[in-house]
Amino acid sequence: MSDTRRDSGGSEDGQQLGPPGPSAAVPALDPEQLQVLRHLGREWERVSRDPEVWRRALPVDPDLGSFPERHEIRPAPVVRLVRVTGLGGTEHEAEAAEAADLPPTRLGRAAHRVRRALLGAPLRNTALVRERMRKLIALPVLSADVLSSVAYAPEAMLTVLIVAGAAGLAYTVPISAAIVFLMLAVAVSYRQTIRAYPHGGGSYIVAGENLGRLPGLVAAAGLMTDYILTVAVSVAAGVAAITSAVPALVPATVPLGLGVIAVLLAGNLRGIRQAGILFAAPTYAFIAAMFALVITGLVQALSGSSPAAPPAPHAQAAQGVGVLLVMRAFASGATAMTGMEAISNAVPAFRRVEWRNARTTLTCMAVLLITLFAGLIALIELTGTVPGGTHQTVLSQLARLSFGTGWMYVFVQAATAAILLLAANTAFNDFPRVLSLMARDNHAPRIFLRLGDRLAFSNGIILLSVVAAVIFAAFGGVTTALIPLYAVGVFLAFTLSQSGMVVHWWRLRGPHWRKSLAFNATGATLSALVLLTAAIAKFTEGAWVAVFIVGLLVLMSLRVRHHYTTVDAALRLRPHAIELPRHAICSPGTGGVEGPGEAGDGRTEEENEETPSEIHHLSVVPIETVDLASMRALAYAASLQQPVLALHLSPSEEEAERFRGYWTQWGDHLPLEVVVSPYRAIVAPLVNYVEALHLQRPDLTVTVILPEVVTRRWWHGLLHDRLAARLRRALRHLPKIVITTVPFHV
Amino acid sequence: MSDTRRDSGGSEDGQQLGPPGPSAAVPALDPEQLQVLRHLGREWERVSRDPEVWRRALPVDPDLGSFPERHEIRPAPVVRLVRVTGLGGTEHEAEAAEAADLPPTRLGRAAHRVRRALLGAPLRNTALVRERMRKLIALPVLSADVLSSVAYAPEAMLTVLIVAGAAGLAYTVPISAAIVFLMLAVAVSYRQTIRAYPHGGGSYIVAGENLGRLPGLVAAAGLMTDYILTVAVSVAAGVAAITSAVPALVPATVPLGLGVIAVLLAGNLRGIRQAGILFAAPTYAFIAAMFALVITGLVQALSGSSPAAPPAPHAQAAQGVGVLLVMRAFASGATAMTGMEAISNAVPAFRRVEWRNARTTLTCMAVLLITLFAGLIALIELTGTVPGGTHQTVLSQLARLSFGTGWMYVFVQAATAAILLLAANTAFNDFPRVLSLMARDNHAPRIFLRLGDRLAFSNGIILLSVVAAVIFAAFGGVTTALIPLYAVGVFLAFTLSQSGMVVHWWRLRGPHWRKSLAFNATGATLSALVLLTAAIAKFTEGAWVAVFIVGLLVLMSLRVRHHYTTVDAALRLRPHAIELPRHAICSPGTGGVEGPGEAGDGRTEEENEETPSEIHHLSVVPIETVDLASMRALAYAASLQQPVLALHLSPSEEEAERFRGYWTQWGDHLPLEVVVSPYRAIVAPLVNYVEALHLQRPDLTVTVILPEVVTRRWWHGLLHDRLAARLRRALRHLPKIVITTVPFHV
Repeated sequence: MSDTRRDSGGSEDGQQLGPPGPSAAVPALDPEQLQVLRHLGREWERVSRDPEVWRRALPVDPDLGSFPERHEIRPAPVVRLVRVTGLGGTEHEAEAAEAADLPPTRLGRAAHRVRRALLGAPLRNTALVRERMRKLIALPVLSADVLSSVAYAPEAMLTVLIVAGAAGLAYTVPISAAIVFLMLAVAVSYRQTIRAYPHGGGSYIVAGENLGRLPGLVAAAGLMTDYILTVAVSVAAGVAAITSAVPALVPATVPLGLGVIAVLLAGNLRGIRQAGILFAAPTYAFIAAMFALVITGLVQALSGSSPAAPPAPHAQAAQGVGVLLVMRAFASGATAMTGMEAISNAVPAFRRVEWRNARTTLTCMAVLLITLFAGLIALIELTGTVPGGTHQTVLSQLARLSFGTGWMYVFVQAATAAILLLAANTAFNDFPRVLSLMARDNHAPRIFLRLGDRLAFSNGIILLSVVAAVIFAAFGGVTTALIPLYAVGVFLAFTLSQSGMVVHWWRLRGPHWRKSLAFNATGATLSALVLLTAAIAKFTEGAWVAVFIVGLLVLMSLRVRHHYTTVDAALRLRPHAIELPRHAICSPGTGGVEGPGEAGDGRTEEENEETPSEIHHLSVVPIETVDLASMRALAYAASLQQPVLALHLSPSEEEAERFRGYWTQWGDHLPLEVVVSPYRAIVAPLVNYVEALHLQRPDLTVTVILPEVVTRRWWHGLLHDRLAARLRRALRHLPKIVITTVPFHV
Repeated sequence: MSDTRRDSGGSEDGQQLGPPGPSAAVPALDPEQLQVLRHLGREWERVSRDPEVWRRALPVDPDLGSFPERHEIRPAPVVRLVRVTGLGGTEHEAEAAEAADLPPTRLGRAAHRVRRALLGAPLRNTALVRERMRKLIALPVLSADVLSSVAYAPEAMLTVLIVAGAAGLAYTVPISAAIVFLMLAVAVSYRQTIRAYPHGGGSYIVAGENLGRLPGLVAAAGLMTDYILTVAVSVAAGVAAITSAVPALVPATVPLGLGVIAVLLAGNLRGIRQAGILFAAPTYAFIAAMFALVITGLVQALSGSSPAAPPAPHAQAAQGVGVLLVMRAFASGATAMTGMEAISNAVPAFRRVEWRNARTTLTCMAVLLITLFAGLIALIELTGTVPGGTHQTVLSQLARLSFGTGWMYVFVQAATAAILLLAANTAFNDFPRVLSLMARDNHAPRIFLRLGDRLAFSNGIILLSVVAAVIFAAFGGVTTALIPLYAVGVFLAFTLSQSGMVVHWWRLRGPHWRKSLAFNATGATLSALVLLTAAIAKFTEGAWVAVFIVGLLVLMSLRVRHHYTTVDAALRLRPHAIELPRHAICSPGTGGVEGPGEAGDGRTEEENEETPSEIHHLSVVPIETVDLASMRALAYAASLQQPVLALHLSPSEEEAERFRGYWTQWGDHLPLEVVVSPYRAIVAPLVNYVEALHLQRPDLTVTVILPEVVTRRWWHGLLHDRLAARLRRALRHLPKIVITTVPFHV
């Protein structure tokens, strides 16, 4: 698995947190390629003009920094012209960037203005700073995801158990105890990961480095599924917190949620970073609210002053307690752990000594999580609260019991909604990052590597929003309906990450390796058990969707990588591309087909012209009618001083005669060939003709010069037959065909 | 309105029935343009090479008829090559056409095979024959539309009246009498049209020639709305005839109807023509069935042997009889007349003497229509049948009363379904024809002029199917819900057509003009009354949809024509395009911007190079990275022997330095400019740079040569950033920019 290691080696230089540098997108040439490049240069030298001749021939000054000032320029009508002096400088930067981004169409400009208002001005690459977090900030920022899940996990568990009535509810405490134990084990397990991967040990990295590429991809797929569902579930639970307080909003659940996702999308495209206090506040507020709730509730319950819980509406048993039911409840409750991996991903963001601070924070987080979870379960148990049909979350019911409907109740609900929003936002940071790591390893389309002009991975953010919104809407924004999908991805990533750590310790065998290995092995085993539980018990309830998505993502990753490998190999400067420099075999005019068939190394003779002298031209100008656009294309073709052939396709012989007549009247300046197409097709006969030309003289590079009428508005294009576009599409698959469009603007 | 006459002059040469010839799509040059062409030729002669030089320089034999035989050619791998010898000949035609049509991608080829299986092999232009019809064939073919409407019109009328209970039903006979009178008047009116327009007098032609362009367009819009609704209503009524007999099919109404539309679509794309006996049979069967039904029913009713009609389920009055109700019932019943214009459109299809035969046929049709309509109304009145909630059409109820459920009942239902299908098929012939007439006058997009390879106006047929299917589905396939939309379009076309005839007679004032004018004026007045009745009484029930569609179509037609006029004027060879032949003002290298601003006649200096010497080149090759694709693009650019500038966009200064290093290693053979784009944008800075080049030297034609990686499957394209396509889109709006893509196939 040595090349897996090389692929994911980028993690070593601490690029985990920030986006990969530009070199990741355009890798440097290796020595072999450089050698080929030099060799190629010598070929050019031998056959081409003196470079100085080219330079002197240049009719323009390419350095547009020395461009005349704007006020000296007589503005040409219609044309939009923009100074670019500032591009290299500093003071005009924002202005130049604005100008450089201005799209050419009116609609485009309007969209551009909306975009700027929403997203702000573009940011320079150098604006990327690596912020270091204090523990007091890191804790709330990184634990929002996991802590927020106590808002829905107990309820999800109860929703399963209540089907079996009181007998089912009796399992609440034992199952919760098992979950708490699991939390402990996973937390200890991740403490190991933090020390071993101080540069950030996401599941993709850890599983990929230790278990191989495929487990790494599976872990990444699990993580991505997890992030998508984090958005969907957190938004659903957040909206539920709001609608519990304002029941009138219940019918608007789906639009509300979609609105929240849209706000998250816009905010993240703008580039919301972990911005200190703003992001710390909701978490602390939520922790405070939960402690207040738990303590007040417990005191009330134990002192007997608690008001009676409303009678459970579904308390009659609909089915008996079975193993499957308990498994399902366990898997639902275990979603309280989603997000526990966050700190281990973000180790480099801590202040020095990073791993030590990260570990301390992880411990704090685990303690908080366990306390809140256990406290809430105790409160639920003591008050006898059950998920009701009253459009109220369990948390809202508990808060009402303890605080009535006063400002404390509102505070609890607001804090809950806020932390859930923050949790969803976490996924907006993590999903594009994982996707960009995968793209760097060629496992995802390269568009996910592209940084938007606000330095955010815009494409990944958009993808996440769209998929999460679709899933949210498809499940009607109901948290409990989404929960069965959730556990699979999370525990898949946990299991693979912990298993990777086991292999890691086994390979390393440093001091205390046995203890570390044991901790991680326990974590891995328990995670795997939850994974199996969730996948089996909830398969038909929705887990199959998650399994399907994971499988699909893995398959796509593999295909994507295969494609990139093929393309990169094809595009690489490689020795045999120049070791057989071909010279013209057919002299122009002989027209024989006994030309070069294949190069010596078995490649076909196509497209290995790397020096100008190897290219022999023929321009073909397809002309539909005699008008200014086609005259311009003919003039362009002729001005290149290479052989030109005009081609006219005619539906009938009479039409052809008429056209030949025009040609004669014009003066017959260029060779014309008229092809009669009795089937009225234009594209197919032309493609055919060009292919036949290629067959006749495979050494020629045929340039098809298409006149193209460009309309000012895109919908006007619908009124024209867009022949140029159709021909371009049809011709681009042919070998050694260059396509030139000579636009004529109307 | 002289140019309206010129526009629609195509009708004079009898092209009404067949499609317009190829010359319609590509109009001939007028003398002025020819003069400009010759002038232009002299310019070329003065400045360009000797034509013989060009011809000798041609490295290929352009006449591919003399192409070597296939077996002599060593087949190149990967490349698909097809013989084109047969294109001009006769015996290999079908084969060559097949080959010529073969699309290059695998998906395309599969689709192609499906298409051939469904639609058959392509047809030659010469396969267009103008079939002449005997009266016995013409009658059923041309009257299917109008006769079939008696299957739903009486029911539509009753459905309105029954709302007022028995008091409403009492109006059945008077309203029917009015409709019969209207039928008579319109028939007489159309008899005038037939004599006056022996080459075919569709509403578009008659209204356009006599009333002006706008009324013509309104008539055409009305007709098109009518045809769309004919399909929707006929299919709905046909499906109702089937579901009346087989009630189990009622829930499948919409899928059934969509299936029928799909069959009609496929059949018409294949090019179903009025194919004699096959199309005559359903009409005669329907006529026979109706006569049998009416006679049997009347005999039974009058002899008192009729079984009692089932009690009317809605017989209690839901509202009183008002003027609006009667108007609505009248408008609904008047839909029995839809399709009466068919014969007047098709006069040239009759045998000699065309107009006399057409008139006789029209008279027959009118007599049949009135007899069937009156007979059915009488039967309904006598049996007391009303539209029921039993999923049975009125016709089906009548047939059951008369024939029970035996084979005669099945025959009536089958014949009804068959003639309705035939009526829908009529619209598939007429709609694309009207659209093509409009396209010939530049009132509709030119794609509707294009004949498919089966000689059918494929695009119009597809448009009709889609729109009719959408409307059918939107109204749930319920005939009575569609009826309110129907009358407006039909009577709009009737009114304008008859009014046009009034003007025609007034202008002509031939023998008996007063009588003819009086007949047409009566027809026009009555049609206008029905139009107003329908539009007002049924506006809220659906007529607004029809009014909206008509308005939209008219507006679009005007915009389309305006656009074509603008474009044609811009593309026309025109004197001032060459009267000021421009010569290079800036000599290369001076780089001043004080170049030519505007030509003397106020046009900007752009894009009026009509001779090769006027074009001064600069090639710009944007290069992202050093690979084979970009080396090939550079080689191509250099081989053109015109000034070349390589352009690299770099996200950072270090990246730029690295690239300059590669360039030096290669040998620095071409001038390189590196633009640092700190905002990571690629397209915008490049567009900007090219614009700045244009500003610096407006006389240059800048060719942007883009390396483009072409993947074998289109979805692989999603994995690449498709920079070439994005740049092409961004650059095509700039003046004097030619875009060349050098493909590199992976």
